[in-house]
Amino acid sequence: VDILPVALDAMGGDFAPSAVIKGAEMAADSGIKILLTGPGEIIENAGKHKNIELQYASEVISMYEDPAKAVRTKKDSSLVVAAQCVKEKRASSMVSAGNTGAAMAAALFRMGRIKKIARPAIATTIPVIGRHPAVLIDSGANADCKSQWLVQFAQMACIYVKKRYGLSSVKVALLSIGEESSKGNLLVKETRELLSKINSFEFIGNVEGRDLLEPPADVIVCDGFTGNVALKALEGSLKFFMNKLLEIFNKDEQTKKAAEILFPHLLPLAEELNPESTGGAALLGVDGICIISHGSSSEKAIFNACKLASDLAKADIVSEITEEIEG
Amino acid sequence: VDILPVALDAMGGDFAPSAVIKGAEMAADSGIKILLTGPGEIIENAGKHKNIELQYASEVISMYEDPAKAVRTKKDSSLVVAAQCVKEKRASSMVSAGNTGAAMAAALFRMGRIKKIARPAIATTIPVIGRHPAVLIDSGANADCKSQWLVQFAQMACIYVKKRYGLSSVKVALLSIGEESSKGNLLVKETRELLSKINSFEFIGNVEGRDLLEPPADVIVCDGFTGNVALKALEGSLKFFMNKLLEIFNKDEQTKKAAEILFPHLLPLAEELNPESTGGAALLGVDGICIISHGSSSEKAIFNACKLASDLAKADIVSEITEEIEG
Repeated sequence: VDILPVALDAMGGDFAPSAVIKGAEMAADSGIKILLTGPGEIIENAGKHKNIELQYASEVISMYEDPAKAVRTKKDSSLVVAAQCVKEKRASSMVSAGNTGAAMAAALFRMGRIKKIARPAIATTIPVIGRHPAVLIDSGANADCKSQWLVQFAQMACIYVKKRYGLSSVKVALLSIGEESSKGNLLVKETRELLSKINSFEFIGNVEGRDLLEPPADVIVCDGFTGNVALKALEGSLKFFMNKLLEIFNKDEQTKKAAEILFPHLLPLAEELNPESTGGAALLGVDGICIISHGSSSEKAIFNACKLASDLAKADIVSEITEEIEG
Repeated sequence: VDILPVALDAMGGDFAPSAVIKGAEMAADSGIKILLTGPGEIIENAGKHKNIELQYASEVISMYEDPAKAVRTKKDSSLVVAAQCVKEKRASSMVSAGNTGAAMAAALFRMGRIKKIARPAIATTIPVIGRHPAVLIDSGANADCKSQWLVQFAQMACIYVKKRYGLSSVKVALLSIGEESSKGNLLVKETRELLSKINSFEFIGNVEGRDLLEPPADVIVCDGFTGNVALKALEGSLKFFMNKLLEIFNKDEQTKKAAEILFPHLLPLAEELNPESTGGAALLGVDGICIISHGSSSEKAIFNACKLASDLAKADIVSEITEEIEG
């Protein structure tokens, strides 16, 4: 299938523009067409690659700007222009490692919502050792949710994991504070009722915070407030533990030698847990494809995000979601 | 000060009754008076210790029973009898490692609420390397909360950390999904407004899930649903990481040797992060002292819980909370 290029925001992320441009080149080398957006003097050279097109954008939205205001006022920013390219059917999808709120707002304002979707939501992957990652939805787009929205989040994530990991059947769980149906807040109790009536996936009931790294499900549903707190708690504790371990490894000559022996065994684990290998989160429910990468994205993470965007475009995930919701 | 004994539920927890009885004896050896509740044939021998009194209770509430129903129907259970002893002023406080919901219900039904406290809440400690633990409140008692309740949670936890860690001033933070005041769900935004008007502690604003293990505050406030999910996510990821590390250590002769070198450095870290060393969570807001220990409590954890109960009784924390809330 010949598809449109991936619009990539050259100025988004802590290591932009260099990591983004390198990631664009890696993607282009692998045959993915890229439409790079950013200031001419910065992105110019990248345009020499046969698979990289350029779209100049003079402004930049920083990580600290108010998202809605930034998107409203900086219409010629690299981020808003990337979303605009999707709207104008010049790109199949957009990728940004910049201001998450601004990326959501730009995608929502430019692409609009899929018909009948109440609210778009962020689907973030959680690495699971030895199998495909689990998807946590919503991980931050909607701080206050209704139960009907959560059902749609589950439906959208279900399509997403099918396309992304080639699953034929999907297990969905609801994040709560106990496995019993009586456990949870009002939103969870209402949502549980609704989820048990859906036939397009297997609803396995509640899971708890402690199950997130070894979940018995492919999709975990929750409101965006809880999802964001839980995800950051996981990230924070893994980082904390890794740092403490490195401190211990570096204590003296003996521990350094011991670390050398253990490193070959630790690296595959660190690699599996590394968010960079997963390519970013997807904003599902907008009428287009929007991949939001971690602010600390390396070139490899950007490459993976572009690959993901391209794969989702090929799989025509927007049409699939539309059918699921209308059906 | 001569205080009443600590009522201890002999039948609560995964390792009850043996771990609980051993913990009771450790506490008694250290001079803490214990009132042990449970079936005669099980607790009899412990009564030979000069600091252990017995109160027979013929029934047992299991971990899987419906809390409210169990407390209503099993009036002669070791757990309900422990709460009853506090009500009758035969004990200063109660400790249970059993069914958390049942322990809350028993304490609430028997002791009642402190006047003007809308809802009791669970204060759980989170270990922080190199300083006193932080307290997360509410970590599971109230799945749906109002902003005014969260303010009371903060006020109660403030007294608690002052008494428990000897702090003269307390920093309070609100758990949210971004540091800016615009970030969070409706509950958090309302609560933030209210917290900024309280003078008895320093409100430092929002913290995120990633800050929980290295928090810039002594007290972290949230609703009981979010708190429970976050706490279990932390516990789960630390356990996950520890297990993976042990797997790697046990791979072959070389890694076992490397592990031996690292163990002396890892143990203090594991010890600091071990929930057992902290003695359990406190249900604050009931008109008495109720310590809820982890289901997997060892004898040492039970000992620490009894010590905590006894310390809080000596500090007369209930009067302190009453004054703070009425003042």
